[in-house]
Amino acid sequence: MQRKLSIGTVERLIHYYRCVEELIIEGQTCISSEELAEKTGYTPAQVRKDLTWHGALGVPGKGYATDVVQQVLRKLLGKHRPRLVGLVGVGHLGLALLRHPDFHKHGFHIVAGFDKELTKIGHSIDGVYIYDVSQIEKVCPLLKIEMGLVAVPPLEAQKVSDALIRAGVLGILNFAAVRLSVPSHVHLENVDLSIELEKLSCRIEGWL
Amino acid sequence: MQRKLSIGTVERLIHYYRCVEELIIEGQTCISSEELAEKTGYTPAQVRKDLTWHGALGVPGKGYATDVVQQVLRKLLGKHRPRLVGLVGVGHLGLALLRHPDFHKHGFHIVAGFDKELTKIGHSIDGVYIYDVSQIEKVCPLLKIEMGLVAVPPLEAQKVSDALIRAGVLGILNFAAVRLSVPSHVHLENVDLSIELEKLSCRIEGWL
Repeated sequence: MQRKLSIGTVERLIHYYRCVEELIIEGQTCISSEELAEKTGYTPAQVRKDLTWHGALGVPGKGYATDVVQQVLRKLLGKHRPRLVGLVGVGHLGLALLRHPDFHKHGFHIVAGFDKELTKIGHSIDGVYIYDVSQIEKVCPLLKIEMGLVAVPPLEAQKVSDALIRAGVLGILNFAAVRLSVPSHVHLENVDLSIELEKLSCRIEGWL
Repeated sequence: MQRKLSIGTVERLIHYYRCVEELIIEGQTCISSEELAEKTGYTPAQVRKDLTWHGALGVPGKGYATDVVQQVLRKLLGKHRPRLVGLVGVGHLGLALLRHPDFHKHGFHIVAGFDKELTKIGHSIDGVYIYDVSQIEKVCPLLKIEMGLVAVPPLEAQKVSDALIRAGVLGILNFAAVRLSVPSHVHLENVDLSIELEKLSCRIEGWL
């Protein structure tokens, strides 16, 4: 069985990866754990522990080769191949997701949109074709879509998720404020924006 | 000094609160730790520990009075008074936030929008007036806004945050994919949607 990582570890690895990616673009070939720690907001000891544990070894006095760190983390984070994504719900949130400047940069490509509104179906938005929501099961396997973004109203979210799952999608990022039920082989992440506001509220109250 | 809670604890308390709030609307006056655990996805032992620790005492064999749990958690989560929120950036993401069905329900009221586009300034959207972004420092104190949503492009995010901070805002929820610098008395939460996709990707790879 594959070793599991904690959410905290994964978040740190993502930040290291993004950092070395930028450094490589800037032409930097080496980075010390202190510098990587400062840029990502963790401690040098944590950086060293994480990188050593995952097989990126540093050279004493020189640091870590940025391309080695990139290579090790790329595989681990599943970034060695592009991820094809389907977007269900092309309302304001859907459009914001479609135009998110970072998705493409980080290897996530929205290759199809789905909506039930006739005014949207059959049009392309920023190069992404919008299909009728009833076509999810047909289109996703054809386009090899493996992740779905659910940006529809709460009452419709389970229905479109079921269609995505029947279409073979392996991961769903759900923005609807409703708890979805998915089979065990499908991975689900929920983005609940009002929870983020609640956390901020607790910080203001001094509890966090 | 005020006792601090972990992010995990705060998330659990938010879910308990939302659950008992719904139960109260449905007329349920009592709930067992087992039932609350089942509805929120935690263990009964965790529920009992959390509620006891925060002063909501159950009655053996009967469970917890829903109104007592609500009262205890309401104060703790800062929900005893409405939170007035200013939205900076009324693009697609901003509009999705403005129309988010849950913000109002959970006590967060967007009372002003700010944008730099002349076609938006001076209009009301769903009852929320849109001001020129240059008016942040003037409008926020007048409307007693204490939280800001930053939904502008990355390059503009620091500038509008600085204006919100000068306007006396205590908490910022940042949607721009950029690290903001804020003084220590201001609380910052970042929502990085591409990180959520990365996590989902790691789940598909079997690391999470």
